[in-house]
Amino acid sequence: MKRIPPIQIEWKPDKNSVTPVYQQIVQFVCEKVAKGEWPIGTRLPSQRTLAALFEVNRSTVVTALEELTSYGIIEGCHGAGTQIISNTWALLLPPSPDWSNYVTSGFFRANNSIIQAINHLEFVPGMMRLGTGELDPRLFPEKMWKRVCESLSQNTTSLGYLEPLGLPELREAISHHMETFGIYAPPSCILITSGSLQALQLISVCLLKRGSTIYTEAPTYLKSLQVFQSAGMNLSGIPMDDKGIQFRNLQHSLKNETQQNSSILYTIPTNHNPTGITMSEARRKELMNFCTTNRLPIIEDGAYQELCYDANQPTPLKAMDETGMVIYLGSASKSLAPGLRIGWIIAAESIVQRLGDVKMQMDYGASSISQWAFAEFLSSGMYQHYLTNLKTELKHRRDHALSVLSRYYKDFAYWNLPNGGFYIWLTIKGNINMELLFENAVKNKILLNPGAVYDFKHNNSLRLSYAYTSCEEFEHAAITLAEIIREQLE
Amino acid sequence: MKRIPPIQIEWKPDKNSVTPVYQQIVQFVCEKVAKGEWPIGTRLPSQRTLAALFEVNRSTVVTALEELTSYGIIEGCHGAGTQIISNTWALLLPPSPDWSNYVTSGFFRANNSIIQAINHLEFVPGMMRLGTGELDPRLFPEKMWKRVCESLSQNTTSLGYLEPLGLPELREAISHHMETFGIYAPPSCILITSGSLQALQLISVCLLKRGSTIYTEAPTYLKSLQVFQSAGMNLSGIPMDDKGIQFRNLQHSLKNETQQNSSILYTIPTNHNPTGITMSEARRKELMNFCTTNRLPIIEDGAYQELCYDANQPTPLKAMDETGMVIYLGSASKSLAPGLRIGWIIAAESIVQRLGDVKMQMDYGASSISQWAFAEFLSSGMYQHYLTNLKTELKHRRDHALSVLSRYYKDFAYWNLPNGGFYIWLTIKGNINMELLFENAVKNKILLNPGAVYDFKHNNSLRLSYAYTSCEEFEHAAITLAEIIREQLE
Repeated sequence: MKRIPPIQIEWKPDKNSVTPVYQQIVQFVCEKVAKGEWPIGTRLPSQRTLAALFEVNRSTVVTALEELTSYGIIEGCHGAGTQIISNTWALLLPPSPDWSNYVTSGFFRANNSIIQAINHLEFVPGMMRLGTGELDPRLFPEKMWKRVCESLSQNTTSLGYLEPLGLPELREAISHHMETFGIYAPPSCILITSGSLQALQLISVCLLKRGSTIYTEAPTYLKSLQVFQSAGMNLSGIPMDDKGIQFRNLQHSLKNETQQNSSILYTIPTNHNPTGITMSEARRKELMNFCTTNRLPIIEDGAYQELCYDANQPTPLKAMDETGMVIYLGSASKSLAPGLRIGWIIAAESIVQRLGDVKMQMDYGASSISQWAFAEFLSSGMYQHYLTNLKTELKHRRDHALSVLSRYYKDFAYWNLPNGGFYIWLTIKGNINMELLFENAVKNKILLNPGAVYDFKHNNSLRLSYAYTSCEEFEHAAITLAEIIREQLE
Repeated sequence: MKRIPPIQIEWKPDKNSVTPVYQQIVQFVCEKVAKGEWPIGTRLPSQRTLAALFEVNRSTVVTALEELTSYGIIEGCHGAGTQIISNTWALLLPPSPDWSNYVTSGFFRANNSIIQAINHLEFVPGMMRLGTGELDPRLFPEKMWKRVCESLSQNTTSLGYLEPLGLPELREAISHHMETFGIYAPPSCILITSGSLQALQLISVCLLKRGSTIYTEAPTYLKSLQVFQSAGMNLSGIPMDDKGIQFRNLQHSLKNETQQNSSILYTIPTNHNPTGITMSEARRKELMNFCTTNRLPIIEDGAYQELCYDANQPTPLKAMDETGMVIYLGSASKSLAPGLRIGWIIAAESIVQRLGDVKMQMDYGASSISQWAFAEFLSSGMYQHYLTNLKTELKHRRDHALSVLSRYYKDFAYWNLPNGGFYIWLTIKGNINMELLFENAVKNKILLNPGAVYDFKHNNSLRLSYAYTSCEEFEHAAITLAEIIREQLE
């Protein structure tokens, strides 16, 4: 094989630039390739030579080459060094918006990599998912699903485009369903979304501005998402106590804001993700008063609203909303099946219309089959029946999980007692390296959701979920995990 | 009832500002309400008084009040004048990004209002949709659908989150399906999207930059969408002849571009929407050479690829693509059912991975039921069988439509002869007011898709579709329309 000599380079990065040096190297290579000066097959000098040429550490060169490799622009060939293998689209990648670039906090990147690892590891066979935000697939109501499919088979005669707000039958069914929680919303105030995540996406592009502040519980599920951060908004975490968000801490921040109009509050008042806390009735009333007085609109995420185990159902904020300041988000993902990709927004008609118009520009609406299927679950009464059984099962799993924790974790951890939902927020006393714990657990086929993913600062917490594993599986994994923690603490 | 006196106003709009006067009035009122200076129930002076106060025409006041009404901030009360009825969210609306604001061309707004009218009128009972981009719901394969539902009922035991690229079974089935068109793509190069519109959305946020130029056929379906324009990109229309896009016109523009990297070509080479033209094989090869030489990446929209009536199938550009410069978009919306919301992207693995990651941040993937359903259609062989029958039916409808046009339109219009897809592009000779034609047609319960919706300049064309109406319906509506046109021409 003929050995191609490496290309000659005379350029050097500018060390005084605000652009990181490795990034300058990436851009330099991309430009050379884009201009056609370095055709496919061009060989780059060795890493050592490049480091000398650029007058930088070899690790900087490695970082740059790794990024170029990930773009598909170069490839390391054994024996032949690094070569240009670009394609045209790959060249578009580097200058394109990297969503994580929009985020101001440096913490995000680390977070992001843990989430990516979790997303990947969830599909590894035999992995015990001890913190996952998903219902045990074995709890899926197969018999009811068969009945739904039969109905779909009989009643669906075509699958055309739907109107912007979504299937009227489904909005009607959701309207009735929400009445049981004290929320009275006509179908014209309900917009069907492709899951709650899309609802947040729509709110971020339609109602909020770059630079807006989203106040939210600390910790919060929202921190694990990138939807608001990617749109250039800031998350601000407000501490919680066992009655919910301590919103009084907000007073000072709101006064200091120049554009009061541009901030909102995002809250999961019921069966909070990740802490499992349910906001007290008194706190709900105070919060509504506070937000009304301060003109601070609220996004109420009701994903776990339907999973309260006790007869005493907490009142949704939307049910107390007299001025239209609450946007309520509902979802079938946590209570039934995420694969349906069905969520809904309840808000004033003008808001819902606006969001619906933009939804049409984004994906022409959610799947009609999914909408028909969930409408059938709801209107047949099957869903209510299913929920009753599901809550009994989850309550049983919670009781068992708490007893396991009491037996094996008491010495070195503390946790809260959830009244619904999926989660126990467990905090380890003393110093422990959480990254190492995550890795050690994975080695033992246990997948954890570290608290840092949800928080604004470092913590020693884990989001445990008893919704995905059977009692036996939970106990087995929890015992192993307790051993791992003990070993690390010693 | 106590009559509240109207509020006193001393402010005046700045007529030298670049902000339109009506917009200044809207902002002024919003600020007053936002600051709490004008509480709910505040009464505004009469339109005549406002016009005098602001020293503007009354029509300017009316425009401003209409906009404020649409935001839900004011309401006209008979006898009590106009009142502030704001809620907190409504106040967020005005300063929030209005997608249409991003568009540079003034043409867009008019266009937009026609499209909105069409979207609305499509749901009016008894309306004959003579230009709609949707398959006749009566052609939906009900029996096959029942078999698919049975299979779903048997084989779906849960509906969890799927991996970022989508259901592996579906990607496998699409991979096989695309082989019949000469496209060899492993499942790892296929990303499932919620329809093709979302594919364009993903490309616009991941791969392109604000200010990028999208070259495309003139006229083009893309003009009727807002996806690229909303993201701050420019559409540039390239004329067509009967062999497809006349790309040589591009040479000059490309040379003049400062950032060559940021332009792409979007094309529907097969059964083009809205003209029905299929690009010749020779033109395809020339185009591929041109784009490769000029490093101009291509988005190939294959929405109508499966609807070629003749045995001679045109080769997709993607099948000629040796350097990875073509991103192919497939869709089940035009050939089977838009309500499935299933589309797919075929591209290099690095591109597909990137788009898939962002898709996860937008909506966690497409509906699992839809994905299972389409996978079953494909892998059972039912889809192929269905397509054969569908094409026979569409060909029959096309022949009938052409004979109707020959009989009733020859004197005053000309049109092309499509070899597949849905559309006939009909152009009226002489001067005719197309807005008036649209209105007159609607009065006669005929819904038209005026060519202006798809074009970059005024035209006298209509996109006719024979896919939505039966032969009898088409003939009946076409005869009525011919009369309306004749009357207008006289």
